[in-house]
Amino acid sequence: MSYICLTPMINPNISVDCVVFGFDGQNLNVLLIEQKDVGQLRRFALPGDHLEEDENLDQAADRVLKELTNLKGLYLKQCGAFGDPNRVKNIKDLPWLQSNRSDPEARVITIAYYALVKMEDFNPSASSFAARVFWHDVNNIPELAFDHSEIVQEALMVLRRELAELRVGHELLPEKFTLSQMQALYEAILNASFDKRNFRKKALNDKWVLPLEEKQIGVLHKPARLYTWNKSRVAI
Amino acid sequence: MSYICLTPMINPNISVDCVVFGFDGQNLNVLLIEQKDVGQLRRFALPGDHLEEDENLDQAADRVLKELTNLKGLYLKQCGAFGDPNRVKNIKDLPWLQSNRSDPEARVITIAYYALVKMEDFNPSASSFAARVFWHDVNNIPELAFDHSEIVQEALMVLRRELAELRVGHELLPEKFTLSQMQALYEAILNASFDKRNFRKKALNDKWVLPLEEKQIGVLHKPARLYTWNKSRVAI
Repeated sequence: MSYICLTPMINPNISVDCVVFGFDGQNLNVLLIEQKDVGQLRRFALPGDHLEEDENLDQAADRVLKELTNLKGLYLKQCGAFGDPNRVKNIKDLPWLQSNRSDPEARVITIAYYALVKMEDFNPSASSFAARVFWHDVNNIPELAFDHSEIVQEALMVLRRELAELRVGHELLPEKFTLSQMQALYEAILNASFDKRNFRKKALNDKWVLPLEEKQIGVLHKPARLYTWNKSRVAI
Repeated sequence: MSYICLTPMINPNISVDCVVFGFDGQNLNVLLIEQKDVGQLRRFALPGDHLEEDENLDQAADRVLKELTNLKGLYLKQCGAFGDPNRVKNIKDLPWLQSNRSDPEARVITIAYYALVKMEDFNPSASSFAARVFWHDVNNIPELAFDHSEIVQEALMVLRRELAELRVGHELLPEKFTLSQMQALYEAILNASFDKRNFRKKALNDKWVLPLEEKQIGVLHKPARLYTWNKSRVAI
């Protein structure tokens, strides 16, 4: 009895990389992998890999994220193509490329994807060439392989712009929330600190949220009023 | 005496395509080329070509646009990567691919760029494999090669979103303009028709523009008030 092993053809010039941002109610994190040990070097990186010849770019992003971190069902969106001729030429990345790529010298253009999730809804676990997968504070990211630091910064810019336009973020809070919870979300993503009164004024004057005739329950101290997103302003 | 001809290496899997939108004061147009005749087929397409191995993606977009249309100095921005496995497999595109590509079967992922210009400022002229270059109304585009129709639609969506956020468009009007000129710009890009009073109210209430103490000069009929962009709202 014999098995036919169909290894999909991979495209040596194209990859996808996924920037998954996670919010835990307080801080914004990004999902990183640690590459499997090659020699002395242990490099951190975004979950990413080459495109297979029979899939499109969106399918590749979903598959690669699943293969390395076991996450699936995320809403991944493109946030840019990165094509510097030297982006995979760093000497520190060479051992890994030599161990993992049939053509370690090949030029690779990568298409970056990003997503924003509630961390509590997803439980990543490492597989394939990821030795470890972990969330890391976006404000203090360690050195990453290839041009992945630049990709994270670009994705963060896109995310901040989407937040300013109320296109993302609303799904990270419960259906009914306090303005303090909302402020924590904005402060985490924008890496900023707002005056509480000014933030409230802005959120209410610009009609981002609508007040409810309800207050927090189950809190010992003074319960705060609850709000909901203004669905005519938010791109849900 | 001999010449050394250094032909740059091209990447068979990556191309760039440019969607150049042009505004003439009334209508929104897109810049198209007609591919040089191959057999019976004459195909229209976006100006686009393969990436050279020593350039990055932005450089490729600038170079390719220059080579095919002689336009330069445009502010080209990425608006998406297109990687359907069948995007260059249409039988109608085969003759051109066979005449122009060393590997006509190769899968090609393209990075799309877009720009918005005043048509009067640019004078395109065809060269390289473009037999002709011309502006065409975006609302009535002929059949295009490859997936270029889809790319135009995607670029148009990005452009409309940028306009709604006041990130583009301001440079298409003179320093001082009438609200009618502004409305023509918005109607052309959004392919919409607005009530004149409602449009004025929106533009003034949302402080997109500021009124000047000046009126049109050199018009025979009732001169209209002039306005200028509100620089604190517009991303200039």
